[in-house]
Amino acid sequence: MTERNYTLLCDFYELTMGNGYLLNGKKDRICYFDVFFRRVPDNGGYAIAAGLEQVIEYVKDLHFDASDIEFLRSKKIFSEEFLAYLKDFRFTGDIWAIPEGTPIFPHEPILTVRARAAEAQLVETFILLSINHQSLIATKSSRIVRAAKGRPVSEFGSRRAQGADGAVLGARAAYIAGAAGTACALSDKIYGVPAGGTMAHSWVQMFDSEYEAFDTYCKTYPKAAILLVDTYNVLKEGVPDAIKAFDNNFGKDRRDVNLGIRIDSGDIAYLSRRAREMLDEAGYPHCKIIASNSLDEYTIRDLLNQGACIDAFGVGERLITSESEPIFGGVYKLAAIEDERGRIIPKIKISENTSKITNPDFKTVYRLFDRKTGKALADQICLYNEEIDDTKPLEIFDPDYTWKRKTLSDFKAVRLMKQIFRDGELVYDLPSINEIKDYCAEQMKTLWDEVTRFENPHDYYVDLSEKLWNIKKDLLDNNGKQKKGN
Amino acid sequence: MTERNYTLLCDFYELTMGNGYLLNGKKDRICYFDVFFRRVPDNGGYAIAAGLEQVIEYVKDLHFDASDIEFLRSKKIFSEEFLAYLKDFRFTGDIWAIPEGTPIFPHEPILTVRARAAEAQLVETFILLSINHQSLIATKSSRIVRAAKGRPVSEFGSRRAQGADGAVLGARAAYIAGAAGTACALSDKIYGVPAGGTMAHSWVQMFDSEYEAFDTYCKTYPKAAILLVDTYNVLKEGVPDAIKAFDNNFGKDRRDVNLGIRIDSGDIAYLSRRAREMLDEAGYPHCKIIASNSLDEYTIRDLLNQGACIDAFGVGERLITSESEPIFGGVYKLAAIEDERGRIIPKIKISENTSKITNPDFKTVYRLFDRKTGKALADQICLYNEEIDDTKPLEIFDPDYTWKRKTLSDFKAVRLMKQIFRDGELVYDLPSINEIKDYCAEQMKTLWDEVTRFENPHDYYVDLSEKLWNIKKDLLDNNGKQKKGN
Repeated sequence: MTERNYTLLCDFYELTMGNGYLLNGKKDRICYFDVFFRRVPDNGGYAIAAGLEQVIEYVKDLHFDASDIEFLRSKKIFSEEFLAYLKDFRFTGDIWAIPEGTPIFPHEPILTVRARAAEAQLVETFILLSINHQSLIATKSSRIVRAAKGRPVSEFGSRRAQGADGAVLGARAAYIAGAAGTACALSDKIYGVPAGGTMAHSWVQMFDSEYEAFDTYCKTYPKAAILLVDTYNVLKEGVPDAIKAFDNNFGKDRRDVNLGIRIDSGDIAYLSRRAREMLDEAGYPHCKIIASNSLDEYTIRDLLNQGACIDAFGVGERLITSESEPIFGGVYKLAAIEDERGRIIPKIKISENTSKITNPDFKTVYRLFDRKTGKALADQICLYNEEIDDTKPLEIFDPDYTWKRKTLSDFKAVRLMKQIFRDGELVYDLPSINEIKDYCAEQMKTLWDEVTRFENPHDYYVDLSEKLWNIKKDLLDNNGKQKKGN
Repeated sequence: MTERNYTLLCDFYELTMGNGYLLNGKKDRICYFDVFFRRVPDNGGYAIAAGLEQVIEYVKDLHFDASDIEFLRSKKIFSEEFLAYLKDFRFTGDIWAIPEGTPIFPHEPILTVRARAAEAQLVETFILLSINHQSLIATKSSRIVRAAKGRPVSEFGSRRAQGADGAVLGARAAYIAGAAGTACALSDKIYGVPAGGTMAHSWVQMFDSEYEAFDTYCKTYPKAAILLVDTYNVLKEGVPDAIKAFDNNFGKDRRDVNLGIRIDSGDIAYLSRRAREMLDEAGYPHCKIIASNSLDEYTIRDLLNQGACIDAFGVGERLITSESEPIFGGVYKLAAIEDERGRIIPKIKISENTSKITNPDFKTVYRLFDRKTGKALADQICLYNEEIDDTKPLEIFDPDYTWKRKTLSDFKAVRLMKQIFRDGELVYDLPSINEIKDYCAEQMKTLWDEVTRFENPHDYYVDLSEKLWNIKKDLLDNNGKQKKGN
């Protein structure tokens, strides 16, 4: 998906600010920006990081072509000096990020940009767009997949996606976080998300009878026949016609053929139970039942609780748009600048709403795992050059209620953020999509059940190191300015 | 946005069905498919059609390149005959559609494809994706713009959009339906949606003081200075600093400069009223106040009801994702096929849920306008070759409750659907984006207030012609099959 130049996919103010920085001697001022989010969609306990690969492609490709510069000149507000600067523009800074597939939590940096002001500002919009979109869908996918309790979930939502990337990259994000595949052919071709699908109602309607449609399908695809049984009447026609087509083409004893029926409407709990009985009685206990009508994690949980006989789910619009909460609120905030001598000056954004106050300075994130259980105990946000000595007990504390303290011992500290770009060069080995998917599944196992509950999950601890907390407190006490001498 | 080949942006089953049609002598069978939707998002009374231009670009460009065919071959389920057919594949059929910017209503066809089965099937996914996405955002934009009662609304949501197309084409759809512009630079370059923007909080934080940041901005952009006043404290610092910067750079008497402040947090009703007083007292009654914090049609309505002093709105995530209902449920249903002799055989999809029953046959839609008031009275779905004689009174009736009847007179009947493709050739003159926008604004004036209410709007009449109703009833009486002799 790199054929298109996305350099201008930015908020216009990134360009007015860039021009202003240049004209006022600030364009090369080194800045640190963090991407973080404040709450998990659907009031969940965790999110899944995704979208980094597309950020990397975007950053590598950053350039203003002649038509971009002509477009900007036509706006009549940019200096020729700035337009000349854009001609040779490329990204020359550093980026650190938490890898795709990692469970992530509110307030911790998931991506940090260190770059000259004009560069760091320009990349804001696309970085947020990519991380927000794919983390949203990955997080939703993770919920839906957990509700299905091991049954495969396929992503079926292209037609209701918010644009082409919504479909293609949404399928990618859903797959990373646990979906078994997609209906979207292009997502398979470009990203290797396994695509599948068999028939729509229109196939059935194209034949003189439902049976003829099923029989023709079985003859055309003799290795895998998933028949859509709800065009007319599931139990009176669809399932009997499917059984007749299976009898006629395969017989009860062929276990090498992948047989299935799909139910796309009606009361799926009832219909699937009756269909299961009919298939079993007819000698097809190995025929799978697939359900696919306006599903999400709640409907899937309820269907399974009601004893629905479903072997796999197709989930469409409610996954591909994260319908219940279609926004992942990642933000991009200035955390520090460097002075002329390269000293880091931490910056904070103060707000009357305390949850909107940012964490200042150049930071990194450690995840602390219990050595006995392997479970994630807490994350600690530290200054970038802080090391956690995990051979000794560590006291952590709540950054808002500092009297809430807890001492951890026998833990392993893992640095979550990896360096992605150094001086504009990509220094990160991109994992394959299946590596990301496997890593995500493995990391999910490190979360306590309390954190993965659908409703009222336990708040996972994301604490600040003592050093970082002191810097933040100092800035807050001085209304955002550092005390003299710091 | 045509650089990318979207031919494979289809559900995989379009391809398995295409292969099946080819192998079973049905690929050239002429089919009619309708795009329609069943309910308006947000329980609104109307939707705005959008996304047709991207459908046109897609259809014109349809082709399988060598890598697409290699990809499909690697799936090992497609016949070589089908893969050879795809090599020269192009769209050779007809498309009719309701133009972008038209208010549209549930159950009426908004786009009809007449094409050979394999072609008509392939285009399903992208057509739905494009129409669903842009109609969703246009419909939401129309609501938000109406809430603002004439004040300009700018689209600010790129960073929270669901992918790049979500941002760029979402801005296009928002503009068509009434937004004044966007923050997205790329949407301006590609589609001519006017982009604007001035500064983020980071600009303010880059300077030693807020005043210095404002003063520098005014010097850099002496024709238009919209200053973001909530980085520290709106009333104690932001507004006074803005006034000082205006005094220092422009003075009270310069009316050629576009002055403004933007408030992006806090209680905007209160803050904007106090800021207005402060600006007026300081001699800047001409300084505009712009608000931009998690807005949508409801918040805007409430702010204005509470006497907020706001001259323009920036609306982000809740517009670009249509947050309150992020899905436009357009479907693509078979309405008819032609037999070997070219006779049209109507098809219906029956469902136990009566609202899911489709309207059969090759159809068109008339909108009936009152000649006196110019208001839209009803839409009538007719057979394609039916003409409405608007010199005579017309009795219309509710298709579900046929005893509900009404006679219209002194009306004008306008055919809403235009032919877009004929035998694969584009025969439609694409309007410019500003023509679409103006047309939309004009058409909105034809809707009664009852239809445009936010809550519990009046159901606009969408009726069937007597002829069409008889065909539908006949099919329903015969479980989807035509009676012998029809």
